[in-house]
Amino acid sequence: MSDARLWFTLSSPFAMKRGGVLTGARLAYETWGTLGAHRDNAILILTGLSPSAHAASNAADPSPGWWEDMIGPGRYIDTDRWFVICVNTLGSCKGSTGPADIDPSTGDAYRLDFPELTLEDAANASHELVRSLGIESLACLIGNSMGGMTALAYLVLHPGSARTHISISTAPQAQPFAIAIRSLQREAIRLDPNWNNGSYDDERYPEAGMSIARKLGVITYRSAMEWVGRFARIRLDSEQREEEPFAVEFQVESYLAAHARRFVRSFDPNSYLYLSRASDWFDISEHGSGSVAKALARIVVERALVIGVETDILFPLPQQEQIAQGLEAAGAEVEFVALDSPQGHDAFLVDIPRFGAAIARFLGKR
Amino acid sequence: MSDARLWFTLSSPFAMKRGGVLTGARLAYETWGTLGAHRDNAILILTGLSPSAHAASNAADPSPGWWEDMIGPGRYIDTDRWFVICVNTLGSCKGSTGPADIDPSTGDAYRLDFPELTLEDAANASHELVRSLGIESLACLIGNSMGGMTALAYLVLHPGSARTHISISTAPQAQPFAIAIRSLQREAIRLDPNWNNGSYDDERYPEAGMSIARKLGVITYRSAMEWVGRFARIRLDSEQREEEPFAVEFQVESYLAAHARRFVRSFDPNSYLYLSRASDWFDISEHGSGSVAKALARIVVERALVIGVETDILFPLPQQEQIAQGLEAAGAEVEFVALDSPQGHDAFLVDIPRFGAAIARFLGKR
Repeated sequence: MSDARLWFTLSSPFAMKRGGVLTGARLAYETWGTLGAHRDNAILILTGLSPSAHAASNAADPSPGWWEDMIGPGRYIDTDRWFVICVNTLGSCKGSTGPADIDPSTGDAYRLDFPELTLEDAANASHELVRSLGIESLACLIGNSMGGMTALAYLVLHPGSARTHISISTAPQAQPFAIAIRSLQREAIRLDPNWNNGSYDDERYPEAGMSIARKLGVITYRSAMEWVGRFARIRLDSEQREEEPFAVEFQVESYLAAHARRFVRSFDPNSYLYLSRASDWFDISEHGSGSVAKALARIVVERALVIGVETDILFPLPQQEQIAQGLEAAGAEVEFVALDSPQGHDAFLVDIPRFGAAIARFLGKR
Repeated sequence: MSDARLWFTLSSPFAMKRGGVLTGARLAYETWGTLGAHRDNAILILTGLSPSAHAASNAADPSPGWWEDMIGPGRYIDTDRWFVICVNTLGSCKGSTGPADIDPSTGDAYRLDFPELTLEDAANASHELVRSLGIESLACLIGNSMGGMTALAYLVLHPGSARTHISISTAPQAQPFAIAIRSLQREAIRLDPNWNNGSYDDERYPEAGMSIARKLGVITYRSAMEWVGRFARIRLDSEQREEEPFAVEFQVESYLAAHARRFVRSFDPNSYLYLSRASDWFDISEHGSGSVAKALARIVVERALVIGVETDILFPLPQQEQIAQGLEAAGAEVEFVALDSPQGHDAFLVDIPRFGAAIARFLGKR
């Protein structure tokens, strides 16, 4: 399998916000386009909880990325103009150091000995990577979902590190509905006897817990409205049904099952727990004496584009409005876009024409 | 413990919609007020998935019921005027025959040998009860949530059985978002090794699965908006926290845990599975050649009150609008009330002043 990942070793020891350090930790990242002589055309993309750094195909890895139609020559994020970096978040299992990696102090996998992870740690790690590429100031910092929260931390902790910002379907702090959902996802994993306090292997793997967690994720990433049109009450053919009691019967159920099957073995359960908890912990107001507005007021960017989706139940629109107002009060020229895409929180991955148009227009302004 | 339940034995054998019969099955119900000499002042209440027939306190059982502030002398549903009946749904575990009861043909509990249950069966059973009380026509049939779907089945299957109808936070058919949620709740129970294909006991009981199912229920019964105001990001005191990894930390998490604790041992898991699946199966259009409108057009009531809540994500407002339009097209005088209660689907249990005012006004018209 081709691999376009590049590697960056963090400063060592790398101190974590809540205590503890990482030794010899690294980040996986990918790039597209060419960094200009003045190093002023760089865009950094911070991802949601589960995506890898492979946002789009490139020469070293022609497989489609998770934002394939967004990034490339002539595309909405035009790599003929921009040097695009996408980083796999610290704590993930897609190359960057996380709980599944070897703890050099013991020679065994970290598992639950991985230090408590926050999105501030993820932000600091990505900032080190950007600085290592000789980039003083990003042309634009883009963050989606969890990556949008990480991006806010990045901008607060490193003033002047980006000239513009695109904030997509994210939040200035985790709210109780999202906390409840994520807490229940973590509980499903923790209750699976195979999780075994983080000490599972391929033979004894918390498949059931991961499956429930992923299905609950997919339910909250989309919208009821989309599914009425897409699945209605269509049933599976009888040959697609299993014999067991209370087996799935509707197409929407097999859609969830297919999502879960693709996910459960491709994402490390401990990594999921760490990143999920980091999302619950995130609260930009910690950087503003308990006030979201005061924290956002510390962010120095020239311009910002804030996009939210009306059907998003996990990161509801008022949270993006709050970000837009905060950045505007901080002195940025802010464009706030509320999209009526039916795909809910996942719309930025699916409704590329609408998101792409807004992003391209914003990036097109000089 | 005092017990106000009355018992009605169904016709035997009682034939089920999808095949199979029940022998010697019975319903538990409670009543308030006095049936008039003309037997024309009866109101029947059909409940959501989990409530018992104890909707309000009465002489035989002074403990508060699940709709305590709604029903009683001088209350919104005034028992000085109305004879109110609340029935525990067929298939439940609160007195009416369900999977936890003894199958007379074997002498053992039915468990998964209970015949496939539909809301039409629950409707037919309740209709038999009403007829047994000598009531030809209900003054009003009230249905909440799952009970609202059962009520629509009741009215379609038994034309002329009610003069008026109050439909609360329900749907003419299960839509994919609600199906997905309920399917995941059932999966959590089924994946619990202690469920053991329905053969659990008090020692080996699917506590973890029931806990996840209930928490997911509570999340979807309320609303994100309510929780922002109620829980925000308030954390538990350190002495309230457990030591285990990824233990709960926020108040919203312990609120869910408290709900789950109260529920898991008080509701039979197999009964939960049967009623949950019956809700997914419900589709009034089966009684209208595949058309919701045609099915609703078969309902003959003089007047109807249809209430929905804007923050309800499980039974969204457009579904109540669909019911209101269908009943109006059928010739009923329809009042449609969209409430902005913040409590989501559960609002009818909590926001008694708003629901009560609409219900009392409707019942007050002669």
